Amino acid sequence: MIRLSDIGNAQTILEGRVLRTPMLPAPKLSALTGAEVFVKYENLQVTNSFKERGAVNKLASLDPGDRARGVIAMSAGNHAQAVAYHAQKLRIRATIVMPVTTPAVKVASTRACGAMVVLHGESIAEAQAKAEELQAREGLVFIHPYDDPRIIAGQGTIAIEMLEERPDLDCIVVPIGGGGLISGNAIAAKAISPRIEVIGVEAELYPSMWNALHGEDRPCGGATLAEGIGVKNVGKLTLPIIRDLVSDVLLVSETQLERAVNAYLTLQKTMAEGAGAAGLAAMLKEPDRFKGRRIGLILTGGNIDPRILASIMVRELERDEQIVAFRLTIPDRPGVLGTIASRLGELGANILEVDHKRLFLDVPAKGARLDVTVETRDRAHAEEILSALAEDGYQPTRINASAVMG
Amino acid sequence: MIRLSDIGNAQTILEGRVLRTPMLPAPKLSALTGAEVFVKYENLQVTNSFKERGAVNKLASLDPGDRARGVIAMSAGNHAQAVAYHAQKLRIRATIVMPVTTPAVKVASTRACGAMVVLHGESIAEAQAKAEELQAREGLVFIHPYDDPRIIAGQGTIAIEMLEERPDLDCIVVPIGGGGLISGNAIAAKAISPRIEVIGVEAELYPSMWNALHGEDRPCGGATLAEGIGVKNVGKLTLPIIRDLVSDVLLVSETQLERAVNAYLTLQKTMAEGAGAAGLAAMLKEPDRFKGRRIGLILTGGNIDPRILASIMVRELERDEQIVAFRLTIPDRPGVLGTIASRLGELGANILEVDHKRLFLDVPAKGARLDVTVETRDRAHAEEILSALAEDGYQPTRINASAVMG
Repeated sequence: MIRLSDIGNAQTILEGRVLRTPMLPAPKLSALTGAEVFVKYENLQVTNSFKERGAVNKLASLDPGDRARGVIAMSAGNHAQAVAYHAQKLRIRATIVMPVTTPAVKVASTRACGAMVVLHGESIAEAQAKAEELQAREGLVFIHPYDDPRIIAGQGTIAIEMLEERPDLDCIVVPIGGGGLISGNAIAAKAISPRIEVIGVEAELYPSMWNALHGEDRPCGGATLAEGIGVKNVGKLTLPIIRDLVSDVLLVSETQLERAVNAYLTLQKTMAEGAGAAGLAAMLKEPDRFKGRRIGLILTGGNIDPRILASIMVRELERDEQIVAFRLTIPDRPGVLGTIASRLGELGANILEVDHKRLFLDVPAKGARLDVTVETRDRAHAEEILSALAEDGYQPTRINASAVMG
Repeated sequence: MIRLSDIGNAQTILEGRVLRTPMLPAPKLSALTGAEVFVKYENLQVTNSFKERGAVNKLASLDPGDRARGVIAMSAGNHAQAVAYHAQKLRIRATIVMPVTTPAVKVASTRACGAMVVLHGESIAEAQAKAEELQAREGLVFIHPYDDPRIIAGQGTIAIEMLEERPDLDCIVVPIGGGGLISGNAIAAKAISPRIEVIGVEAELYPSMWNALHGEDRPCGGATLAEGIGVKNVGKLTLPIIRDLVSDVLLVSETQLERAVNAYLTLQKTMAEGAGAAGLAAMLKEPDRFKGRRIGLILTGGNIDPRILASIMVRELERDEQIVAFRLTIPDRPGVLGTIASRLGELGANILEVDHKRLFLDVPAKGARLDVTVETRDRAHAEEILSALAEDGYQPTRINASAVMG
């Protein structure tokens, strides 16, 4: 059983070792959602996620014998870097087992923290088995990513900090992977402010905690943007805490996660990984549930692949029709492309890409097909441009810009 | 003459009206630069730039008659939104003149703050003339973006906050547009900590303050990523302050600005506009100057076009050879593309784009040209892939990926 006092002790241990991250009002997210939104920026930790809190609280609790033997963890993500970084600071030898499919950049940054990285297995399960084997053989201490009272208490320090700054929060919205983060924070938040509501969020593709709470068996799997909470199992320690203290678990779609990542970036000027944006995604999914209330969001981490982030940004511009692609059928003679390009300029459309083709059977032999991607001011402007081209006789039809932009 | 006490008064006026932004250690930027870097996050203000500080200090100082008549400002950028937002909060009518070329999103967000926007003139100079005409005709108060003691004092509150948190800073690095920001902060910093060094930064394309200080006449102009500091004039008030208190002005290239924007995003998980990243760009340009010292950077703003940011990210991946494009000459027969794609898979290269062409004169009549863009782990991996393809006889040559990716 984990108490507020355990989390208070963790706070003392964390002081000077882990950043007390800022919690700030987010007026543009408030305008977007109709609630009064506050964001706790855990993405500003050194390894860019909240995982350091639990890791430090666990590592600092080890006795001299355990410290001398060293620790082991299995993770392809933020837990790996958090354990590696703080083990090095505490002069504890750390071994991290990662599946062989782990992106090289994550392997490198874990090694850069001084950990020994063992790449093993195609899946999380195989890597886990390897970690257990090494742990037993070498007498190492296993650092579980969530199902450990010390880890749970460490993560719970976030809610203490949030409520110290805004004791009047009505609700906190917390992503759920294995459930360590929400368990610690629910214990702290409910003990400090019994009237507060704690809402959990999972990716629709991985409704493991939702299944456990509702006695259902929806499938878990697939490539989610929120790989940090793409967890098939629930914790033995965390499930009863969540059943007890969390009022609801909301499931968010990949599109909602994308929109939330983009909103953090464009409105709040901060980089959220998919799992880190899950709380905001839940607010976008069920705005009525949050409207008019003071909501605390934990932006849990910022480790997202730059190429994926770039593609989310471009896709969002396309959804907003600030990037529009269309196909024109044009007479195939010199000067036509110039005429159309000039016309687009007059209409205020900024040309991003042009693809000119003559080799299709579905255009007249003397005709050609022109695919154009342009930047517009907004949806209305996009309509205006297409109408003008239709009036000019170019028969514009919309096509998918993502396909063109890559 | 502006004194520390004026800036202290501004701090009192700003309390509760403007965010006291976080200043945090940035260990990954420290590792990148070899200095101990602290970042002041002015991009977290409601309108996402420091400009609110000067605007509030100026607007709050107006007497009832001035307030009743209203204010006017000329700006296509952050100053416009800052004045519009805080004039509305203070119930002062604001008119903002913007050049007709201003991006629609900036016009819309300024209008959304309740300001009347007048679009006039192709250039800043023409818009400025219009603003002066309206100001005279309607008896409005002109809110200058930098050459005003109240504006300068407002911006200087940043240095007070920074030194309250880290009195031991050795140096602050501050972008220069008209010079209001650096003037206020140099006055405050030098008064509080006389041994501190204040370094200014301009874009190489707009060395106006550098010119004034060095008695030179380098050209100012061109499309800079740092449009917020792309200013051709220097302030009458700001020039003597800078001459007196700023030890040096560094000029940064567009590539250095791009790299700095990307470093803020990927390492520090925060969104900086070009001008906002100028301080970090200066550290990347002259690392020896900063190495081993405690450096305070003001991340002045985060208003950057998402499409430009996406393209910077992709270009950086290309510079790091995590995205590589190459051209292969292949026999034009069925199955070859499949063979190459499978080979790339074996080599761990993730294919992003393929362009297959048969219609070039410089390939054999029975041959074809294949342009492939792939994602790699790093530079060494890219080399490995190209060597393997060369051994296979495909004669790979590198081409420019940006051209392919858009």
